[in-house]
Amino acid sequence: MSAPVPAPETEVYLDHNATTPVAEPVALRMWPHLTERFGNPSSATRRGRAAAAAVDRARQELAALIGAEPDEIVFTSGGTEASNLALRGAAAGAGCRRVLTSPLEHPATTAPLAHLRTRDGWTVHTLDVDAGARIDPDSAPGTELGLGTLILAHNEVGTVQPAAAFSEAVHRAGGLVHIDAAQAVGKIPVDVREIGADLLSVAGHKLYGPQGVGALWVRRGTALAPVLRGAGQERGLRPGTENVAGIVGLGAAAALAAEELRRGTAAQVRLRELLWSLLSAGAPALVRISPPAGCLPNTLMVAQPGTVGQEVLDAAEGVAASTGSACHAGVHAPSASLLAMGVDPRTAVGALRLSLGRSTTESEVRTAAEALCAALRRASG
Amino acid sequence: MSAPVPAPETEVYLDHNATTPVAEPVALRMWPHLTERFGNPSSATRRGRAAAAAVDRARQELAALIGAEPDEIVFTSGGTEASNLALRGAAAGAGCRRVLTSPLEHPATTAPLAHLRTRDGWTVHTLDVDAGARIDPDSAPGTELGLGTLILAHNEVGTVQPAAAFSEAVHRAGGLVHIDAAQAVGKIPVDVREIGADLLSVAGHKLYGPQGVGALWVRRGTALAPVLRGAGQERGLRPGTENVAGIVGLGAAAALAAEELRRGTAAQVRLRELLWSLLSAGAPALVRISPPAGCLPNTLMVAQPGTVGQEVLDAAEGVAASTGSACHAGVHAPSASLLAMGVDPRTAVGALRLSLGRSTTESEVRTAAEALCAALRRASG
Repeated sequence: MSAPVPAPETEVYLDHNATTPVAEPVALRMWPHLTERFGNPSSATRRGRAAAAAVDRARQELAALIGAEPDEIVFTSGGTEASNLALRGAAAGAGCRRVLTSPLEHPATTAPLAHLRTRDGWTVHTLDVDAGARIDPDSAPGTELGLGTLILAHNEVGTVQPAAAFSEAVHRAGGLVHIDAAQAVGKIPVDVREIGADLLSVAGHKLYGPQGVGALWVRRGTALAPVLRGAGQERGLRPGTENVAGIVGLGAAAALAAEELRRGTAAQVRLRELLWSLLSAGAPALVRISPPAGCLPNTLMVAQPGTVGQEVLDAAEGVAASTGSACHAGVHAPSASLLAMGVDPRTAVGALRLSLGRSTTESEVRTAAEALCAALRRASG
Repeated sequence: MSAPVPAPETEVYLDHNATTPVAEPVALRMWPHLTERFGNPSSATRRGRAAAAAVDRARQELAALIGAEPDEIVFTSGGTEASNLALRGAAAGAGCRRVLTSPLEHPATTAPLAHLRTRDGWTVHTLDVDAGARIDPDSAPGTELGLGTLILAHNEVGTVQPAAAFSEAVHRAGGLVHIDAAQAVGKIPVDVREIGADLLSVAGHKLYGPQGVGALWVRRGTALAPVLRGAGQERGLRPGTENVAGIVGLGAAAALAAEELRRGTAAQVRLRELLWSLLSAGAPALVRISPPAGCLPNTLMVAQPGTVGQEVLDAAEGVAASTGSACHAGVHAPSASLLAMGVDPRTAVGALRLSLGRSTTESEVRTAAEALCAALRRASG
């Protein structure tokens, strides 16, 4: 079997919420750890100590990006593992088996919650959300809680949640707070102290780092049981020989994201709004699902009622995008998140998730808008 | 903080059981997936499909190395996660809560077993082992079993176990069989059908692949529950966006290992025996702990009674090696495996694990032997 053919250079990639490219400085920092600088951080050899130092540096870089202390970072194999560790690790010590969440969560949250419900008898309370996917913290039940978990920035719609208010509500009810920030970290400023949570998940490949690495921020003093069991790496919370190159990549990506965020997100918002204005001009039936404000700067979800998103994308030559979360791709059922927001199913099936990246140019936006408008016109014609 | 200083070129690396370097062809095959060939295998885009194809190719390569079918391979973040999935995933469906194992297991096995014992009331039966660390399958209790788990090649001593006899004994007693082959795959021929097991763990960074990736072989039809919960990747057994570059690396490492194994292991055994003959000539009090036969071709564990292994290594300028499993490094307590073999504690504390690699040369063996002999003489003087 031959190696896969790379996508043509001319394709406009508007699928950054599925996975970002690895930024070049990130890949370059990883490379020595995939070649001459190999070592096991648990080894007492010079190579082992150098590997451990590289992991420590990455820990500092990621901590700095999210306003945490380095010793609060637990490296994992990705966002899903981080959220499993957060939810199940915190649930193990919870006095009360009630969790508060939203109807918009990623499977990395909903699946562990389903497990807690069916295996351990937890009750899952779900907050109301408005048409912009924003939660209403006042819709929390007045009961005691063991846990609260919320997606900070929605993977499909891009809505950024009032996480600090959520944290406060859950803390008031006695629960620990987990924030799934996989889609948020690197795209918008995220400060764990401002949010006031106890646990926060990060995914490397959503912030121009590599796939296969992520992290859980664990506020000092938070009681957490490991999910995976083994040797004592990551303070006993995450066993297994460290993915040194991957962790170095996540650290480098965090350092780069901090720089990018200092430049602000206005340029990306401008391009996204240009995309929307071109699309809505060329396809007047198009509905904007993502809220214009309180949204990730790179994310635009739109839908033309009566179309099938995947068919539109198949017809939009030279544009790479998703119809919803990549994790659900291939299934044409409307997104549960969109239904929870009150989007009617006929519209939800037409949803297109257009997610811009750091390298997206105005010319690419214009090219993509043209191809998408042509496809939308054909779909409705 | 500056980048760690790489180990000097002149160091003789005899710590391949802690971690191997990534083979150059492996790193070169990973690189495009860390740069221009990014994509999420769950995306319906061209990039996504190319990423999925790269994962499929790796699945075929790893399956071919161990005599499995591609659809029996579940990629994980490493050997520890693979063994957690095997043991806890199989335990979830077991009718009988008794497990058979050896006293020589890695923490990736002992820690999940301890969890099964304390949380779910499992009973752990331990086989007898001889002075060469070889299990006695006849020492199994005559009871029904839910599970059996055995380390195929020992990480410290190198002993290769009679896994087929173990599998047969556990199957006769009604249990599923897991083999921890993390240290064996790539070093010796491993054929899952010959072993006759149901589950087998693989670790990428022990066979010249990258850290942070591994796999569990799951015999078709084996009932297994996932440990991590999330989206449906890896047939629902291991959620989270795939580590495409890492998986490609593991596949490439498997293909390379198959080539290496076709060349045979005689050259490596010859170098190991040269190392032993030089060491025993220069340090006559040295004891060979690894059995001369039935052992990994690259592994030599030795000890000089009355010395402390780490002090010997600290004094052996220019040699990188371990005193025992890297996962326990930093702790001077004798290895539990050595005590189980009947090695007296005074000898066990002096244990040195010398593990050769593909690139190890005769000249390196001579250099290392000289440095080690000098250190041993000083230690006993």
